[in-house]
Amino acid sequence: MKMLINVAETVVADALRGMAVAHPELTVDVENRVIVRRDAPVAGKVGLVSGGGSGHEPLHGGFVGPGMLSAACPGEVFTSPVPDQMLRAAAAVDSGEGVLFIVKNYTGDVLNFDMAAELADDEGIRIAKVLVNDDVAVQDSLFTAGRRGTGATLFVEKMAGAAADEGRPLDRVQEIAVRVNENSRSFGVALSAVTTPAKGSPTFDLPAGELELGIGIHGEPGRERRAMMTSREIADFSVDAVLDDLDPKAPVLVLVNGMGATPLLELYGYTAEVHRVLAERGVPVARTLVGNYVTSLDMAGASVTLCQVDEELLRLWDAPVSTPGLRWGR
Amino acid sequence: MKMLINVAETVVADALRGMAVAHPELTVDVENRVIVRRDAPVAGKVGLVSGGGSGHEPLHGGFVGPGMLSAACPGEVFTSPVPDQMLRAAAAVDSGEGVLFIVKNYTGDVLNFDMAAELADDEGIRIAKVLVNDDVAVQDSLFTAGRRGTGATLFVEKMAGAAADEGRPLDRVQEIAVRVNENSRSFGVALSAVTTPAKGSPTFDLPAGELELGIGIHGEPGRERRAMMTSREIADFSVDAVLDDLDPKAPVLVLVNGMGATPLLELYGYTAEVHRVLAERGVPVARTLVGNYVTSLDMAGASVTLCQVDEELLRLWDAPVSTPGLRWGR
Repeated sequence: MKMLINVAETVVADALRGMAVAHPELTVDVENRVIVRRDAPVAGKVGLVSGGGSGHEPLHGGFVGPGMLSAACPGEVFTSPVPDQMLRAAAAVDSGEGVLFIVKNYTGDVLNFDMAAELADDEGIRIAKVLVNDDVAVQDSLFTAGRRGTGATLFVEKMAGAAADEGRPLDRVQEIAVRVNENSRSFGVALSAVTTPAKGSPTFDLPAGELELGIGIHGEPGRERRAMMTSREIADFSVDAVLDDLDPKAPVLVLVNGMGATPLLELYGYTAEVHRVLAERGVPVARTLVGNYVTSLDMAGASVTLCQVDEELLRLWDAPVSTPGLRWGR
Repeated sequence: MKMLINVAETVVADALRGMAVAHPELTVDVENRVIVRRDAPVAGKVGLVSGGGSGHEPLHGGFVGPGMLSAACPGEVFTSPVPDQMLRAAAAVDSGEGVLFIVKNYTGDVLNFDMAAELADDEGIRIAKVLVNDDVAVQDSLFTAGRRGTGATLFVEKMAGAAADEGRPLDRVQEIAVRVNENSRSFGVALSAVTTPAKGSPTFDLPAGELELGIGIHGEPGRERRAMMTSREIADFSVDAVLDDLDPKAPVLVLVNGMGATPLLELYGYTAEVHRVLAERGVPVARTLVGNYVTSLDMAGASVTLCQVDEELLRLWDAPVSTPGLRWGR
């Protein structure tokens, strides 16, 4: 498998050097692996810190900026960052109003963010946490007790970021984050396996004529394999899987998310099918976002995330955001 | 090759249906294949129309909106749109101030935009044109007399769009577009071939251990094949190829553009190497954009585009833009 890299050992550091030169509005600490808004800490505002294994870009580093994250901690590819990174990030962004940790539900991330919270507490930084676990595909997985955190992370980071931007206190920002997660569900499919730089070959075997339904963002197994399906059939299966678990009583935000190697042309076609299913099921759509946001390196495939929104959440979604990966309204 | 599609025959129409539901700020005419700003024509402002084969998304449809294109015409995959599309687009966006056609230098596009310009003239619409031909890799190619138009298209569309937004007359908007193209050069590499929906298998054969230097955005042959190189070596080769042809006397905009299937993690690492080479060659960088903007479906690889900018062009680059694929400043 060919990659546009130097050596596997330096891919994360090399990418951070690239982020540093491309985004002067961010402070990128390459050695310690922390990406921070240059204007942090912002007086009177809660800080938001997230992080996780690399390989899901633009998540999380690409979501650092006004209206979204205050800082992000990238781990090695598909490997949790360490508590020291999270502690550094928290210290860099805490204005005295406290810090919210946004944690995807993977065992390593959960343990390390817990440890970082204890260390931060020792240093007098108030920490609140939210656990993102939106993936309805499997109850437990290779790296998870309980459901995996996937596409909803973007929704949580965006809306909690907007709440922090409005100057809300830590417990209210946390409440928004929890509410977004509770109202979000995801389901993803893979058409190809993923290849990590360290391994250099696909992490699992997906036969030529098959797809994997319910895939995770690290190539963890999903619910089942089937003979290749059409976009229409995949949308039916995926949206139904989400709606089996979330019965929206209000309009939804829709994220049609590419896993990395699926062309935007296909993602838009898939979006049409996702909207068709939602219309057939009587679910009104408030907003739709299409693109590669929570990826899995070079995996082909797509996930659908729905988030049921009330007026307050919709206002927070629409609020201005200015990050490398998501930007509108200012 | 598995794709997230229904059937090859409907991929473009399906994608347009998806754009329509995802972007209510655009008017998407699925039947006639024209994407237009909902507020077009904008009184007192020149209209900008571009188009080309599909498969390069977000180019061009994703660049329709305030501060960039007024309309885009998508052809079939890797196939020029037809004059009737361009005429419809011109008629939809002409406020009486005239329309600039932004044309990538491919034989089909050039012929069809020329014909559309004649038809528009018959209808009393003033048309000016700019030909984008930034790719230094080959002098002529499979689909081109002269150099191919690639990454610089984004620069031309953005800066001419900003000039139109400022209310400049047609000849001045055209002059900006020509100036941007003349100051821009690109060079791309492919690590894998591209697969079109109609063919269903790779359009060319790229052996496991080799890369293609100087690839086009349709998988046209480049300058040469070599044994796989590191990111550092590819950056040296690519930036030198550009600088052999463009000797910047002023700072440059840098576009590090993914061809579709190369992970953002790798693109950022490559960006670090591109900046390293530019620093070594004494070329100052004004702005850097990293991501998948002018793509070639599922091809892995990346291109580098440099655009030498004076103060005026830099101001036009920084001006607000609000499109699905490029957005900042408002």
